[in-house]
Amino acid sequence: MMYRIGIDLGGTYIKTGITDEEYNIIAQSSVKTDVMSGAENIINKISEQIRLLTKENSIDKSQIAGIGISCPGIIDSKSGVVLYSNNFNWNNYHLKEKLQNLLGVKVKVKNDALCAVIGEMKAGNAKGLKNVVLLTLGTGVGSGIAVDGRVFEGGGDGGIAGHNVIVKNGRQCTCGRKGCLEAYASATALISETKKCLKEHPNSKIKDLCGGDEELINGKTAFDAAKLGDKDAEKVVFDYIDSLANGIANLINLFRPEAVLLSGGICNEGDNLLKPLNEKVKGNCFAGDILNIPKVEIAGLKNTAGIIGASALIEMECE
Amino acid sequence: MMYRIGIDLGGTYIKTGITDEEYNIIAQSSVKTDVMSGAENIINKISEQIRLLTKENSIDKSQIAGIGISCPGIIDSKSGVVLYSNNFNWNNYHLKEKLQNLLGVKVKVKNDALCAVIGEMKAGNAKGLKNVVLLTLGTGVGSGIAVDGRVFEGGGDGGIAGHNVIVKNGRQCTCGRKGCLEAYASATALISETKKCLKEHPNSKIKDLCGGDEELINGKTAFDAAKLGDKDAEKVVFDYIDSLANGIANLINLFRPEAVLLSGGICNEGDNLLKPLNEKVKGNCFAGDILNIPKVEIAGLKNTAGIIGASALIEMECE
Repeated sequence: MMYRIGIDLGGTYIKTGITDEEYNIIAQSSVKTDVMSGAENIINKISEQIRLLTKENSIDKSQIAGIGISCPGIIDSKSGVVLYSNNFNWNNYHLKEKLQNLLGVKVKVKNDALCAVIGEMKAGNAKGLKNVVLLTLGTGVGSGIAVDGRVFEGGGDGGIAGHNVIVKNGRQCTCGRKGCLEAYASATALISETKKCLKEHPNSKIKDLCGGDEELINGKTAFDAAKLGDKDAEKVVFDYIDSLANGIANLINLFRPEAVLLSGGICNEGDNLLKPLNEKVKGNCFAGDILNIPKVEIAGLKNTAGIIGASALIEMECE
Repeated sequence: MMYRIGIDLGGTYIKTGITDEEYNIIAQSSVKTDVMSGAENIINKISEQIRLLTKENSIDKSQIAGIGISCPGIIDSKSGVVLYSNNFNWNNYHLKEKLQNLLGVKVKVKNDALCAVIGEMKAGNAKGLKNVVLLTLGTGVGSGIAVDGRVFEGGGDGGIAGHNVIVKNGRQCTCGRKGCLEAYASATALISETKKCLKEHPNSKIKDLCGGDEELINGKTAFDAAKLGDKDAEKVVFDYIDSLANGIANLINLFRPEAVLLSGGICNEGDNLLKPLNEKVKGNCFAGDILNIPKVEIAGLKNTAGIIGASALIEMECE
């Protein structure tokens, strides 16, 4: 029996998992990343987790086909170099080489959103599909796109949808541009708009829900206030969904996926998010009356997409 | 010697060309389409042009590898069915089948913008490149995208960039959506904004250039008035270029092409268009300081891209 190791390297946690040939996770661990401790320490933590997990499960080095790493940022998949990762403050960090030298096992590195869509295709809600768009709605908006069964990066390092402008000269985005999808459809954007709404409407239900403490506002607050009939919160939710729908329709026009998957805490809203979102997406796609419009659904793997997707990198050609 | 036939089927002209194995056009003709005459008449015209051109050049049917057709609209390339073409008012028209039956030669059909990018890769300004974005700036904004040397249609019928929203809830587009790239970056949009500018500023240089006759305003007028120092016309040009730059940057983030090519009459502006456009595109791409930003250039083949691209369809797999 051969195994693969998948590492979901995040800004907060390093999650390590061993998968079998059917992408079942047979063992996993999670430790704090501690970004401030530096790259060498992080590499050593990864190495230590792999050592512990394989030992506990009596897996010999010869049974490990390879190690895949899901990493936020701009990754050169061919060389395994992290060109830039905001989360780790890495520039041109030779992650693959370092870890490969340390462990003597084949290593592959890919962007986290790309690993997530691979995970969904191997074992999640996109199982059996070949054309998929996955958006992660969190601090930012990450995108993992698959075309014809392969992760899509265009001519190289492409497939970045979160920083595509949906409102020319609109809201300032952290990337420096204005009007990016991320500035409208991330959880951060939703929270920021909810706070703004509370400031403008001090007696809104948002106030009751957060007890007047702005810091307690989260991605759920506007949805909850809207459910209580708050018109201003309804507007925040409407605008959030409208923005997300425009971003998704843009991607459908270009990629015509079989499914669009969403992940992130906002997905807990379920049909309160999906029903109006799907209606808007359908109306916003080019030639919606002639061509099939894929359904927008929630991603299936939640916290394990990164591990499973990373572990699948090993068997993927090139990159 | 084997030859290929490329048909550039447009709303105004049917252009027919014979290409050799190096994609040189060895003979060509152009006749009025006369859309109102109906599909059968158009098919017969195509057939007649092929007959005349091959006869004139002493090319036997056995020397024709096949016939490729560049057609506006939504085409199912596999079946050669025109699902919808606004220009011809065709719905589910079996173009490939009809022509193949009539002529007894292999026929392939593809969207006109896709044929244009194929043409540019075979014999134009994208020769030797594998990842290319081509935008046609005319009545609408067409897009032809190539990834890894192949025409990109995503999961099928994708690659449509002109109807991607760059201004959420912005200008009404002919497609029914609001804020599409086409509503800001087409020649039609530029002309419409120039007319609007004249209405708002009746003493603008635009008035001198068109002699006060709105109907004489074209895609050149605002550029010309701006060159004469007209501040309002400058604003029209600035906004046009800004919109186009946003649309191009969005495509670069997703496709990371080696080159972005533009076609259409507006390209005659040369550096007046390209210089400010390239500057804006550079500033608007994600990770512009880390990743290479391709240059935006003018397409090379002008009126023959359709013929050459269509003639190349024959040797392309599947589709």
